[in-house]
Amino acid sequence: MRTIEFKNKPRIISTGTVAGPKECAGIVGEYVDKRLTDDKFGESTYEKAECKMLTYAISKTIENAGVEEKDVDMLISGDLLNQIISASFSARDFDIPFLGVYSACSTMSEGMAIGAGFVNAGYADKIVSATGSHFSSAERQYRYPLELGNTRPPQSQWTVTGAGGVMIGREGSDIAITHATFGRVVDFGITDVNNMGAAMAPAACDTIRAHMKDTGRSVADYDLIVTGDLGALGSRILKDLTWEKGMDIQKNHVDCGEIIYKVVEKEFQGGSGAGCSAVVFNSYIMDKLKKRTLKRVLFVATGALLSTVSSGQGESIPCISHAVAIEVI
Amino acid sequence: MRTIEFKNKPRIISTGTVAGPKECAGIVGEYVDKRLTDDKFGESTYEKAECKMLTYAISKTIENAGVEEKDVDMLISGDLLNQIISASFSARDFDIPFLGVYSACSTMSEGMAIGAGFVNAGYADKIVSATGSHFSSAERQYRYPLELGNTRPPQSQWTVTGAGGVMIGREGSDIAITHATFGRVVDFGITDVNNMGAAMAPAACDTIRAHMKDTGRSVADYDLIVTGDLGALGSRILKDLTWEKGMDIQKNHVDCGEIIYKVVEKEFQGGSGAGCSAVVFNSYIMDKLKKRTLKRVLFVATGALLSTVSSGQGESIPCISHAVAIEVI
Repeated sequence: MRTIEFKNKPRIISTGTVAGPKECAGIVGEYVDKRLTDDKFGESTYEKAECKMLTYAISKTIENAGVEEKDVDMLISGDLLNQIISASFSARDFDIPFLGVYSACSTMSEGMAIGAGFVNAGYADKIVSATGSHFSSAERQYRYPLELGNTRPPQSQWTVTGAGGVMIGREGSDIAITHATFGRVVDFGITDVNNMGAAMAPAACDTIRAHMKDTGRSVADYDLIVTGDLGALGSRILKDLTWEKGMDIQKNHVDCGEIIYKVVEKEFQGGSGAGCSAVVFNSYIMDKLKKRTLKRVLFVATGALLSTVSSGQGESIPCISHAVAIEVI
Repeated sequence: MRTIEFKNKPRIISTGTVAGPKECAGIVGEYVDKRLTDDKFGESTYEKAECKMLTYAISKTIENAGVEEKDVDMLISGDLLNQIISASFSARDFDIPFLGVYSACSTMSEGMAIGAGFVNAGYADKIVSATGSHFSSAERQYRYPLELGNTRPPQSQWTVTGAGGVMIGREGSDIAITHATFGRVVDFGITDVNNMGAAMAPAACDTIRAHMKDTGRSVADYDLIVTGDLGALGSRILKDLTWEKGMDIQKNHVDCGEIIYKVVEKEFQGGSGAGCSAVVFNSYIMDKLKKRTLKRVLFVATGALLSTVSSGQGESIPCISHAVAIEVI
């Protein structure tokens, strides 16, 4: 049993989002709280810009809830930078107990799952979970300095510049987190660090399958099954893998990475990064939940648990996916 | 309120520990499950050795509990390597849902706090929390390659080669986790990356103070207040800081980093690293709890949330400390 049912139905009270210029030209542009015109956000380094975006997302989440910093019992955050410095340095700006988490690009759903678990258990009234990423800090940490102008292979994705936060509380809205399904590490032996979609799709499939088995639900019970950042190719692979396991997600599956950029061709397989699902879920998807266009969503963020050292030492890419079920009640 | 009281008193069922040759010459030598004679643990790289130690600690924790892998509901783990690859690659070897966490050298107590919270809430029957570190992988990631033979300043500490795991469950022992106090990020402006003790001591002080305030307990209510890896200097600073705040911890405070090596002079201020408190708590301190030499312990692991990038960009060192209260009931 990998799924927890939250009997007290912790609510999503508010969200806060910010995205870069490239992202705002795409689907999230009209839904985010802040559209950056400068991808350095006025800072001197990309790392500082990433941290500032995350701090903004946390602050905006608190502001959008109509509460104050002192009302928030816990901050749960992590990011892709080494030693999750964006999260740690953001947390320094808030007088709120901080839990650092790391689950690569599934950090958003891991944070939501822990947050909902703590609120459901009565440990906290209000928790903010947040994450983000930045294209340029990710490129230079994981790949090459931008200045080299390296070519990108067709299966690659574009790390999203953006951050998103969500406040989970005991009451205050009619959108609830009803379940969390925790992922196992799944490794299909993919070693191509430019092909994250193929590496992560099996983890998403494993978690979706566990969720359906544990809850007795079927794919049709969800208006939408939204994965994190598999991209266009990874999304196709997931559809195949789930089909093989007897689940047809063709009609109600979208991937945040696939839809975030309008012109997918130019960004190859689409978006990735912890900020991808954080921004898309907390702006675009939440808007649909608020408007009742969507009433029940399974949010399945996916993470590739590699590092430059593990890849350099010849290791394959272990992946994970944590899911949370969200419902208008 | 930063403290959760666990009404159902989740128990510490078992622990599993492994330590390197240098560590085993010190205080933990006679208590760990495995004493390494080769600090590469038969692997080709230090990173792989670190991962193997962590995997060993998790396996041994499960074995020492007399249960099997399938009986464990969740694994909570993190480490100091970029993107917590030791934890992620260890988790790949187990068919157990995995929560990745990062809190630098306070990862052990963060993992115990989340684990106890989940067990207390009835989300899980048995959870393993584990972490570890390796001197040589930490040196080359955070400082310099060993081959350079750089000199060490007198205020520096020695990253512990070792790993420790703990199983938390609903029943099965009379040693319980009764409270968790979550840390806030505290930054006193220290920028010397060789002086972690001075950077982390204020975070430990802040969490100890919050714990006493929230629980209505005093320092004298504990047989021992054991911090993570402040080292000899950091421990002295903590004693001063707590004294200033009206708490006298002179008589019942020890620091895992200060005590792990017998010859502190040679290791400067003592041990550090996520493995330091993980090994000392799960072997030496747990032995004292089992023998009733200690009956109530406040375990306050401490973490410095820096990275080479943040330090390189001139940032100071934000620190955090999470505490768990452990009691023979």
